[in-house]
Amino acid sequence: MSYERDRIARLSPYVPGEQPADGDIVKLNTNENPYPPSAAVMEAIGAVQAEQLRRYPPPQAKPFRDIAAKTHGLDPAQVIATNGGDELLRLAITVYCDAAPGTPESPGGGGGGIGVTEPTYSLYPVLAAIQGAPVTRVPLDDDWSLPDDFAARMISAGAKLVLVVNPHAPSGRLEAVDRLRDIAGELRGKAVLLIDEAYVDFAERDALSLVGESDLDNVILLRTLSKGYSLAGLRFGYGLAHADRIAALDKARDSYNTDALAQAAAVAALASRDQAAASWQLVRDERERVARQLRDMGWQVPDSQSNFLLASPNPGQDAVAASVFNSLKQRGIFVRYFDQDRLRDKLRITVGTPGQNDALLEAVSNL
Amino acid sequence: MSYERDRIARLSPYVPGEQPADGDIVKLNTNENPYPPSAAVMEAIGAVQAEQLRRYPPPQAKPFRDIAAKTHGLDPAQVIATNGGDELLRLAITVYCDAAPGTPESPGGGGGGIGVTEPTYSLYPVLAAIQGAPVTRVPLDDDWSLPDDFAARMISAGAKLVLVVNPHAPSGRLEAVDRLRDIAGELRGKAVLLIDEAYVDFAERDALSLVGESDLDNVILLRTLSKGYSLAGLRFGYGLAHADRIAALDKARDSYNTDALAQAAAVAALASRDQAAASWQLVRDERERVARQLRDMGWQVPDSQSNFLLASPNPGQDAVAASVFNSLKQRGIFVRYFDQDRLRDKLRITVGTPGQNDALLEAVSNL
Repeated sequence: MSYERDRIARLSPYVPGEQPADGDIVKLNTNENPYPPSAAVMEAIGAVQAEQLRRYPPPQAKPFRDIAAKTHGLDPAQVIATNGGDELLRLAITVYCDAAPGTPESPGGGGGGIGVTEPTYSLYPVLAAIQGAPVTRVPLDDDWSLPDDFAARMISAGAKLVLVVNPHAPSGRLEAVDRLRDIAGELRGKAVLLIDEAYVDFAERDALSLVGESDLDNVILLRTLSKGYSLAGLRFGYGLAHADRIAALDKARDSYNTDALAQAAAVAALASRDQAAASWQLVRDERERVARQLRDMGWQVPDSQSNFLLASPNPGQDAVAASVFNSLKQRGIFVRYFDQDRLRDKLRITVGTPGQNDALLEAVSNL
Repeated sequence: MSYERDRIARLSPYVPGEQPADGDIVKLNTNENPYPPSAAVMEAIGAVQAEQLRRYPPPQAKPFRDIAAKTHGLDPAQVIATNGGDELLRLAITVYCDAAPGTPESPGGGGGGIGVTEPTYSLYPVLAAIQGAPVTRVPLDDDWSLPDDFAARMISAGAKLVLVVNPHAPSGRLEAVDRLRDIAGELRGKAVLLIDEAYVDFAERDALSLVGESDLDNVILLRTLSKGYSLAGLRFGYGLAHADRIAALDKARDSYNTDALAQAAAVAALASRDQAAASWQLVRDERERVARQLRDMGWQVPDSQSNFLLASPNPGQDAVAASVFNSLKQRGIFVRYFDQDRLRDKLRITVGTPGQNDALLEAVSNL
């Protein structure tokens, strides 16, 4: 006996990267920051009183919104705090998208859905499927850049929410802010552009200036503390946008979506941003070193502006990448392999500490 | 320019009870447990290492599911951990309900929606409105019990998810387990019955036995640590149900919906359940004392099996209740007033510590 809606019964859920319990693993598969969160974060957690847990938390996460607004030069009404960046994605789909008028078997058809690049973060279509929203996929150009007709194709497909991860995952390529501004301008009045900046702390620039532009009322930036602030275990993300967009997202979230501990930790994380920024520079330096050495060993490694590299041991040879993935795993080094078009000959390798990266490089050289 | 779906633009969001920052307030308006969480919970939070926050949390909250299963004599596959009980409610609507085929202006029409009692927890219809699911409302009998034709009316309205809060909010009345079993049996094959046991820790019995009955595959119990375990600030709830229902709910949740700190605290809370249980007894004793003394002062106070009382200073006289509400507030005593049918002549008063309750009773006697 099944009670679930068809779309749920049929759903293939998102598959996160493996989280092995074994502490000896060199874990370069899920893009965590290899450096610990700042001491101030741990102190803030330790300072939370039992009384703060007994009571409901601040429902609007006001202390966090205040410091996030100050950090980014915005108004608190332009900030929403969420239970991880994932919640912001779900909220955006809930607020801007409709279930497909047709069947779940005809994705890409109908209107009111999401628009994504191909490839992209694999969670997006899963969240759309949960809501029954159709998915329009536009392939990236060969260099992972957005095609010239990207916005036009999204408009003609009737997408209401266009999701662009920047720096791009899994390639690490950073799109120019001017290009994103043009796309937002084309979409304006027709669709919202959510720029997923989950990895932007490791890049040389962000798209924050777009949120400040009064004629771009359709841009939402996603930020997370998971990567840049070494707090994947905390589940804390936030959105930056025009106050009207934030007010709408706010209506759809669970009443108390972020808890008292996470709020306290998140405030401390932004207050000690300089320490996190030091880790970003270490990651960038190591990223360039690992890329250089892999290239020296004959791998193809495009430039990345993120905390991972999308590297191919032998372009076009899917079996080689799969074999390297398994060999590394046997040696206790976890990287990520995506069994999908354009990615089967590549591995996504998170940038680790110098020691972890050395272990990776040595294992590769011994293959 | 609006980008939001009509149903979101029109939505009146849930209004939580006031959370004044002033610590001198006697806060009897949002049903927190007046006693602190157990020391073991605070210790568990303090013991969380930076490394646990740097990495993603256990995605299935396995340690919590294990201890919850053991606590309730179930299998871990019959447990789902959620970011507060609110998330479980949202997941259930996402999984079992469809947007109304008609317009949002015709609630109660169409199929695939939720079914609730009138009155009930005011969040339910808000969550349904976010998803566009229609709402069927069946008034409770005069004594707040479920009417005999409750299940039949839900079936005829096409409700796919029936939500019953038990002990009932805001009345505190506890429905008999046999009655709930009969309703679940009537709904079986047609709809899921979610029994919201948010307040069950303060009652003399729960409906746990229904989850163990193999022919009742359509019962979901909601539990939360917010009330019984004094952890409203933590946002941790869970669901207990047939493994097939849990698997479906699991598909719809955000990949990492509960964070590492909350998981650690929640495990410690269940492990130190005896301490929480001591607070439940204190609350029950005080509940009876406050009810008795209010009755002595001429109030009408039905028996409650929860941690609050729904009390009327003067039945039928709405203005009296509203006036008492305001007078108490001026004296720094916050209780809850619901401006809706059958409730306007009543106040919902959370049971506090003996000192808080004395302050309430003294203020009432001086009105």
